Amino acid sequence: MRDVVTYADSGVDLEAARRAKSRIAELVEGTRTDAVVSRFGSFGGRFTATPGRDLVASADGVGTKLKIAFLTGRHDTVGADLVNHCVDDILTEGARPLVFMDYIGCGVLDPDVVADVVAGLATACTANRCALVGGEMAEMPGFYADGEYDLAGFIVGEAAWPELGERDPAAGDVLIGLPSSGFHTNGYSLVRKLVFDRLDLAVGDPFPGEDGATVGDVLLRTHRSYLRELESSLDAGRIRALAHITGGGLPGNVDRVLGAGVDAVIDTGTWDVPNPFRVMQEASGAPPAEMFSTFNMGIGMVAIVRQADADAVLGDLREAECAAFVCGEVTAGSGRVRIVGGDGPA
Amino acid sequence: MRDVVTYADSGVDLEAARRAKSRIAELVEGTRTDAVVSRFGSFGGRFTATPGRDLVASADGVGTKLKIAFLTGRHDTVGADLVNHCVDDILTEGARPLVFMDYIGCGVLDPDVVADVVAGLATACTANRCALVGGEMAEMPGFYADGEYDLAGFIVGEAAWPELGERDPAAGDVLIGLPSSGFHTNGYSLVRKLVFDRLDLAVGDPFPGEDGATVGDVLLRTHRSYLRELESSLDAGRIRALAHITGGGLPGNVDRVLGAGVDAVIDTGTWDVPNPFRVMQEASGAPPAEMFSTFNMGIGMVAIVRQADADAVLGDLREAECAAFVCGEVTAGSGRVRIVGGDGPA
Repeated sequence: MRDVVTYADSGVDLEAARRAKSRIAELVEGTRTDAVVSRFGSFGGRFTATPGRDLVASADGVGTKLKIAFLTGRHDTVGADLVNHCVDDILTEGARPLVFMDYIGCGVLDPDVVADVVAGLATACTANRCALVGGEMAEMPGFYADGEYDLAGFIVGEAAWPELGERDPAAGDVLIGLPSSGFHTNGYSLVRKLVFDRLDLAVGDPFPGEDGATVGDVLLRTHRSYLRELESSLDAGRIRALAHITGGGLPGNVDRVLGAGVDAVIDTGTWDVPNPFRVMQEASGAPPAEMFSTFNMGIGMVAIVRQADADAVLGDLREAECAAFVCGEVTAGSGRVRIVGGDGPA
Repeated sequence: MRDVVTYADSGVDLEAARRAKSRIAELVEGTRTDAVVSRFGSFGGRFTATPGRDLVASADGVGTKLKIAFLTGRHDTVGADLVNHCVDDILTEGARPLVFMDYIGCGVLDPDVVADVVAGLATACTANRCALVGGEMAEMPGFYADGEYDLAGFIVGEAAWPELGERDPAAGDVLIGLPSSGFHTNGYSLVRKLVFDRLDLAVGDPFPGEDGATVGDVLLRTHRSYLRELESSLDAGRIRALAHITGGGLPGNVDRVLGAGVDAVIDTGTWDVPNPFRVMQEASGAPPAEMFSTFNMGIGMVAIVRQADADAVLGDLREAECAAFVCGEVTAGSGRVRIVGGDGPA
């Protein structure tokens, strides 16, 4: 019998993270000023500079996906991961990106690596019509291992689709799943454990079932930005809420946009979980529920729309070359996300 | 004969940093949008959300001062270092802080440490009337040594004193020095080398010549915010330019606000370099020029004012309990900073 490897085993103490979060919520609340509109725990901090014109800010890191960049020596994609993650976060708050800044911490600065990282940031900023207005490169001898670095980013957008802030999904609404490009930027501690330790693969080896794409290729696939895909549906006022599927997976993110009186029922029979996630599930031996609360399982963003708007939104998305699909519905309930269907958790 | 220990010896390759900076300037320039007002290399990125209402953003880290927090186990001051550093950066761009976000990267999250870090952030945010609107805590197993973390911050302010953006110091203008509280957040790689290796002190030992204050006490003295001190002079329109004295010291920061046709002449005879810097100079054996281009040497901010306004500004600063002093003048020249006087570099 094989050991079951789960996210907690891989070194991430989610409970400790939750504890710290609740302790600091109080501290943060104490700094509140009249400029602040958002509540603690939203996907982005909303604030006002000019009355009537909200801005939304968000901070993020790339996480341990960076280790794949270190192992492969490819540093020009993680910047796009970071920008797109931030863009998607504030998109769920109804904001269009305005400016981005980065922080790169390293032991000794390698100018070529930094230029590659910034190239990734710049490419994604341009694609999202977001200006890279500054950043900080910190050389901190003794902090980072040779050839390693950390990368964090900060985005500010302006509220363009205020109805998203209202978040009022109602029973009968439809959940539309937008495909992810891979693991995006979540679950990499577990991915690395499974791929490198349990499957004993190296970054240059073919990834199982991926037509010769290497482990490095598959694990570096870039976090997808959904701004361009969703823009026309947002402009038409057809989206009620968006959930960006990051750490915590579908159950841990869709619940953030539900009201108290409804559940989201997601049917795993509506899409094929992409091969890399199935490889992870098999390698781990963990139950599907564990996988669904760690990985995006093929859905990077969930749009909640009125039933009457579903076809129009699916049409808009297809026009934007996004193979979106109905993945569930909103029912009367108590604010929970229920994952049902044959391949899903019990 | 003793070896001379300089900043480059301590592991920071400033030349490599400069090279990377110039390579990425081009990449960043390519992301420019209509919202951007600032040029690459300013203390903060200036952008517009609403026409006529500029915002200024800046990103920073605490740097290796964090090692002192690790050694002493005191984590409730580095947050204030970070916030105040960011506040001072955008102050030089004429901006008043609006919101702040943090990034904490660590190996395994210790909730008490994180809460202490956030307490430092929150205290300083409140003191600067800046809201802490969000942040990211990233647990990255295998990235950071046990008990260590990195801390970066992002600030957005609104342009309140637009005349500072013009930066037009003229011959005859007066340089006013605002005292620092210590090393602020710069030069800590060298400080650590000198204090722990060359002077062989531990964090609990008394710092030489500091009345029993420990090494930890002296090295953790918090980066000072100059917002409150400078506010009335700024409101009165009496400040032409501000230079925040960070990495590069007086020569490497005052030059950033000079035009091409003037020099800044700073007279080291106008203030007593505080004891901790003198201890560092003696321990290092490096020439004064090296010290002045690494440390702030007792001046954390330089205000450039018209001669006719100097007394009023000094009066405002004294009223705000800031023991500021005239430390030099602007002369005809070529954009250089010249440090003159007995104790200064030749």
